[in-house]
Amino acid sequence: VVSIAWTKSHDNAILHHHGWSQCAVLIEEGLFENKVDLGFKNETRVLEPGQTFNTPVGALHQMKCLSTRGRTLHVYTPKIQSEVETKLFFSSSLKTIENDLSLSASVKIEDLKNLLTTIRDQSITTRSPFFMNQLFAGILPQTLQAEEIISQTKTTLATIEASPVFSKIESLVVDALGELIGWEENARDGVSVPGGSAANFMALHCARQKFFPEMKAKGMRGPALKIFVSAEAHYSFKKAAVALGFGTESIVPVPVDETGKMCANQLEILIQETIQTEAIPFFVCATAGTTVLGAFDPIDKIAVICEKYHIWLHVDAAWGGPALFSKKLFPLLSGISLADSVAFDAHKLFGASLTCSFFLTRHRDLLLAANDVSGGDYLFHSEDTEVDRGKLSWQCGRGADSLSFWAIWKNVGTTGLGEFVDRLINIREQATAWIKTEPRLEIVAHPTYLNICLRVQPPLAQAHAKNWSKLVREKLKTQNLAMVNYSSNEEGDFLRLILAHPQLQFDHVKQILQWALEVE
Amino acid sequence: VVSIAWTKSHDNAILHHHGWSQCAVLIEEGLFENKVDLGFKNETRVLEPGQTFNTPVGALHQMKCLSTRGRTLHVYTPKIQSEVETKLFFSSSLKTIENDLSLSASVKIEDLKNLLTTIRDQSITTRSPFFMNQLFAGILPQTLQAEEIISQTKTTLATIEASPVFSKIESLVVDALGELIGWEENARDGVSVPGGSAANFMALHCARQKFFPEMKAKGMRGPALKIFVSAEAHYSFKKAAVALGFGTESIVPVPVDETGKMCANQLEILIQETIQTEAIPFFVCATAGTTVLGAFDPIDKIAVICEKYHIWLHVDAAWGGPALFSKKLFPLLSGISLADSVAFDAHKLFGASLTCSFFLTRHRDLLLAANDVSGGDYLFHSEDTEVDRGKLSWQCGRGADSLSFWAIWKNVGTTGLGEFVDRLINIREQATAWIKTEPRLEIVAHPTYLNICLRVQPPLAQAHAKNWSKLVREKLKTQNLAMVNYSSNEEGDFLRLILAHPQLQFDHVKQILQWALEVE
Repeated sequence: VVSIAWTKSHDNAILHHHGWSQCAVLIEEGLFENKVDLGFKNETRVLEPGQTFNTPVGALHQMKCLSTRGRTLHVYTPKIQSEVETKLFFSSSLKTIENDLSLSASVKIEDLKNLLTTIRDQSITTRSPFFMNQLFAGILPQTLQAEEIISQTKTTLATIEASPVFSKIESLVVDALGELIGWEENARDGVSVPGGSAANFMALHCARQKFFPEMKAKGMRGPALKIFVSAEAHYSFKKAAVALGFGTESIVPVPVDETGKMCANQLEILIQETIQTEAIPFFVCATAGTTVLGAFDPIDKIAVICEKYHIWLHVDAAWGGPALFSKKLFPLLSGISLADSVAFDAHKLFGASLTCSFFLTRHRDLLLAANDVSGGDYLFHSEDTEVDRGKLSWQCGRGADSLSFWAIWKNVGTTGLGEFVDRLINIREQATAWIKTEPRLEIVAHPTYLNICLRVQPPLAQAHAKNWSKLVREKLKTQNLAMVNYSSNEEGDFLRLILAHPQLQFDHVKQILQWALEVE
Repeated sequence: VVSIAWTKSHDNAILHHHGWSQCAVLIEEGLFENKVDLGFKNETRVLEPGQTFNTPVGALHQMKCLSTRGRTLHVYTPKIQSEVETKLFFSSSLKTIENDLSLSASVKIEDLKNLLTTIRDQSITTRSPFFMNQLFAGILPQTLQAEEIISQTKTTLATIEASPVFSKIESLVVDALGELIGWEENARDGVSVPGGSAANFMALHCARQKFFPEMKAKGMRGPALKIFVSAEAHYSFKKAAVALGFGTESIVPVPVDETGKMCANQLEILIQETIQTEAIPFFVCATAGTTVLGAFDPIDKIAVICEKYHIWLHVDAAWGGPALFSKKLFPLLSGISLADSVAFDAHKLFGASLTCSFFLTRHRDLLLAANDVSGGDYLFHSEDTEVDRGKLSWQCGRGADSLSFWAIWKNVGTTGLGEFVDRLINIREQATAWIKTEPRLEIVAHPTYLNICLRVQPPLAQAHAKNWSKLVREKLKTQNLAMVNYSSNEEGDFLRLILAHPQLQFDHVKQILQWALEVE
């Protein structure tokens, strides 16, 4: 509990973050403005004496005294983990706690709590704005709240009877995404799946059901089926091809141009070549936002080809899907309404729970046709018109993954999600402009999305050093400064910075690059 | 904040549950005993003046004053949701909040929090001891703590670099389970999968990799492969057979005896018949704990047959796996060490997060062989000897599912998990003895595990009513009393009661059955 006395001369408002504690403020005297930074959104309220406000766990807040004097009472629950908050980023040190993790000795509940706190504090801090290693960053208060509710309910999405509200929420989210894609209301459908890889997996599964429904009973028979994905597509297509019985040789990689986009004319040539053999081209994936360069394949051109040859068109928008919400970026997805299916991850750019992924399709009834089997009578009793959502999935018991994305969307609105994307795009523009002024930094391909790929040239003293970008990356990581990823092309290694953190500022990007330049 | 004055004459200790609030107690005067019920375990501590104790969210606690007088201060954070606590069970009323769920109107963070609380309170209360509908019940404080840590870290299990501690925890849990199964230390392996269905799925995938490694590249070709499961096995084998390209016709259902166990001699006959055709028998699943009757297939006998015909033996122990921890029940799993793979769900009987499932195998390197593909270089940089766990899975980004089970195990120990199973078995014995004294109740098959299946005969006034058990079930549900499941056999419907709740008492079971008998 902290009591603070304020005067109006307090021009510097107090902006702070309480770590993992929730902060309740009671206004005892005076008039205050309280601004809460919820990641995707700021909310401002004027508070009068006697009023209270709870800043949720995970949010920053800033208070300003509007009257000549004031007095506030602050209560933090549970206690502030100040030690954690002083560090922006930790690399992990597993060795210090490894022995405590063993299951051969048990501990009392208070020690368990301490151990769990230590585990958290020894884990990679993906909430730091200097964490840019994955296609996600930041911990949102809306997600924390949603996850608390999921923990406290533990219901399964398999049946409407066991989770009426969460089933409804899943279908609302699926429907709203289908509407943004531009699919007809009576045709669109979808389901939560455990990750973007699983969404791509489901796409192959549904496409096979559509074109070869007899395989549901008979299994994979007959001529080889071919899957066309860009050379930069996600590796999950290979995994899915193996698991689903197509085999890795079913994958036909389509060449990309220098920006990482699939060459549509090459796609058509490869399809024609396949037709000359005994194999059947049946599935094309257009990637919207590749993992390394963030490239968007030309969906509209690819859609024309798919229509011509009667091939399923899937868009892997696990990373680039948020462009649906941005007027500025939507043109990158031009033609997406022609897709048969789309993969969308809300746990990436939009900060939902890991995982919060959706498989979406414009062929209603196909999910049921592909996934429903007999033998679940002990579970599925519904005499409702609504289909139990477990029948759309090859999972049985599963949690309410969609709730966190629903909570974020409900709090910031469709427009708010678009503004969030646009804000990050502006930071990218500032960052690329700045990079061009730095002689030792070189953009690898001008970004279309929120991946900045750049090469760091070694300083003069190290002029002949090889793999300098990779070395820089390792230094930033081992020094607990920042975590960025790297990749390589024929000219060598380069860094990949992902702009995804809800509280990201240009200065964070600049800071990381300055640290990168300082490596000796 | 509540201040309480005590005298020793206070013989009735105060036993209570704070709903979703954590309770901190400060001893101001006197000597106290505080007993905390953590679900699988009770912990007792003596507290002296000046000492504090936090009872975690989700636990019950009971205080007793040991001295002639005493004074305690109790702080609840956040506030007690007393309205919620007065009801033991709610059926859901989606309609009252349906309009508030729409994504077309956004709400401020405080209203979002209220809305999420309403969603929770309108959801099925799986924490009630009168919830017996699924193969899980109860919300454990250890799970709540683990899930909070997962929310606050959001790291992906794909790489050790991104989640060194959670990767270690996953392998510790997998290894400890493999040890209990009886597999050699250098051979056993496993991975978290999104649900028991996914574990069965992975079993088919790995078995195919073992016997037909060429299919990884070439896909499903050649003769039909046959999968043998009992007629009472989980429907997920059918789903997996469709998705993996075997087709539903690959499934050969093996007859069961009157207790629901697979007839091993029938299995051998069916295998021999298959060999006479062009098809290849390659996979047998023995179910340890069927969904309806809780039957255990005779693993030892099945193992002999599998060895004889060189067939993969998988044990679906998603529900019955906890018998591994109980000396009393372990004989039901006799022969499990001969299995090639096992599915184990910790979110069922052991109360971990939904989902917390494991695929386990005694063939190290097979998970990698079945799931690893090229093309993930942007992600997998490890030069370590430890394999990044994403390579063992067909998922990419995924959360630390195993943490909650690790936390429970760490708190109660291997012995504690066994005692938990045995305690519920004792309740089952009391319940079945009581049922036999009630003329209108009839056990369907004497239970071997924690499923009690029984038929309720209608009262005299309804002597000719059909499907009475199903009607009883619906009444218990609509009256907000209890939620049990039902199934049917050739003699009609029957109720299925699942004993899984950590705080279950015999009286809860008796109460449900008394309500069932009162239905008119």
